Amino acid sequence: MTSNPRIPRPTATRVSLYLRELERRLEQGESTIRSRELGHSLGLTDTQVRKDLGHIGHLGFPGVGYRIEDLIARLRFLSGTDRGWRAAVVGVGNVGRALLSYDRFEAEGFRIVAAFDDDPAKIGQRVGDHQILPMDRLRELVHERGIRIAIVATPPAAAQEAADALVDAGISGILNFAPWRLEVPPPVVATEVDLGMSLLQLALQVRMATGDLPELAEHGAKDSPMRARSIRR
Amino acid sequence: MTSNPRIPRPTATRVSLYLRELERRLEQGESTIRSRELGHSLGLTDTQVRKDLGHIGHLGFPGVGYRIEDLIARLRFLSGTDRGWRAAVVGVGNVGRALLSYDRFEAEGFRIVAAFDDDPAKIGQRVGDHQILPMDRLRELVHERGIRIAIVATPPAAAQEAADALVDAGISGILNFAPWRLEVPPPVVATEVDLGMSLLQLALQVRMATGDLPELAEHGAKDSPMRARSIRR
Repeated sequence: MTSNPRIPRPTATRVSLYLRELERRLEQGESTIRSRELGHSLGLTDTQVRKDLGHIGHLGFPGVGYRIEDLIARLRFLSGTDRGWRAAVVGVGNVGRALLSYDRFEAEGFRIVAAFDDDPAKIGQRVGDHQILPMDRLRELVHERGIRIAIVATPPAAAQEAADALVDAGISGILNFAPWRLEVPPPVVATEVDLGMSLLQLALQVRMATGDLPELAEHGAKDSPMRARSIRR
Repeated sequence: MTSNPRIPRPTATRVSLYLRELERRLEQGESTIRSRELGHSLGLTDTQVRKDLGHIGHLGFPGVGYRIEDLIARLRFLSGTDRGWRAAVVGVGNVGRALLSYDRFEAEGFRIVAAFDDDPAKIGQRVGDHQILPMDRLRELVHERGIRIAIVATPPAAAQEAADALVDAGISGILNFAPWRLEVPPPVVATEVDLGMSLLQLALQVRMATGDLPELAEHGAKDSPMRARSIRR
């Protein structure tokens, strides 16, 4: 084991939570934060927070905690969003169109620089600033435009084929909106936007907020110190 | 503190992670799991896992761990997805159309039973099985069709107005696709689908997978969770 240090994938997943929380606090004028507070806001133990931030190479200052601005800069640097990523959308149906007109990616450090579809009827059409391109130009444009990540928004049955083409073209990462588990060879990374799970999270929060969970009372009375500290946002 | 037990919101957020991981393991023929293994898969400490599962009222069996099927049933029960939620879509642009034709919500325990828009040109149009309805019928239909949650997919400038109308109509929870932070009065819950953050997670994973993070080598070599722990108080 020499170089190739790894941030564990679950830590990477939590980077976005840390980032949103830190940005919120910075906006409110806070400048430092302790692992305990940060954990409290996110429902993580402070050990977990220190582990995660240790993995990203940020150790904080004893008695002071973490400087919020530094930590944000570090997270933005690590994710490369401070320099910008060039992305393509593959599949210009409803979701693809929505993504092409979504105007907040740029502020987050992502620029969509191409849109592809394999439907001859769509090729050449314009959506916002984009002209829909045929899949057989994928490889050429990935190289020409420095595209490293792609968003797959095809129907489920076409998603794997799209992913294969993207891998062939040299893409490094895929964000998948199609309800289909993609197989990609390492080091290519594929992650999924899971709408069912977003709804499930909401449903559970609704059940709690509306007091629909009386059956928890028994357990709730007994269980852990965390309970007292739980906060609602 | 008497009744009204609460699952901390961050625990609720992790329920979906537990559920996906447990379902995956069940599919692979596993029947029990220890907090340590579950934590390992999700990058959480086992203390964190035990806390979370304690909050949802599941304590496991010493020396055995958790029965996967029971735990899944418990999570489905708590979220009400074993009985089904009726949902509405508000705003039938590209995202709204995509949601109305997304066919996996039903399997997850959600049924979209109405679609609303305030654009007279859209009202009466059909999208899949749905006819687009005017906003002034919202209240009536929320009651008639037992709608408890709504997905807001309007343009950002219209999202708050849509949320206000939904709250007035008696809805309990909103999943917001519009890039806008909604204000809703308790006990109504609003959560956001944050696409920028999904991309950021992907970006970070790509940087790790492709070895784009040599600057971590230095830290990585020295730091371990142990070290981070000893330095921070």
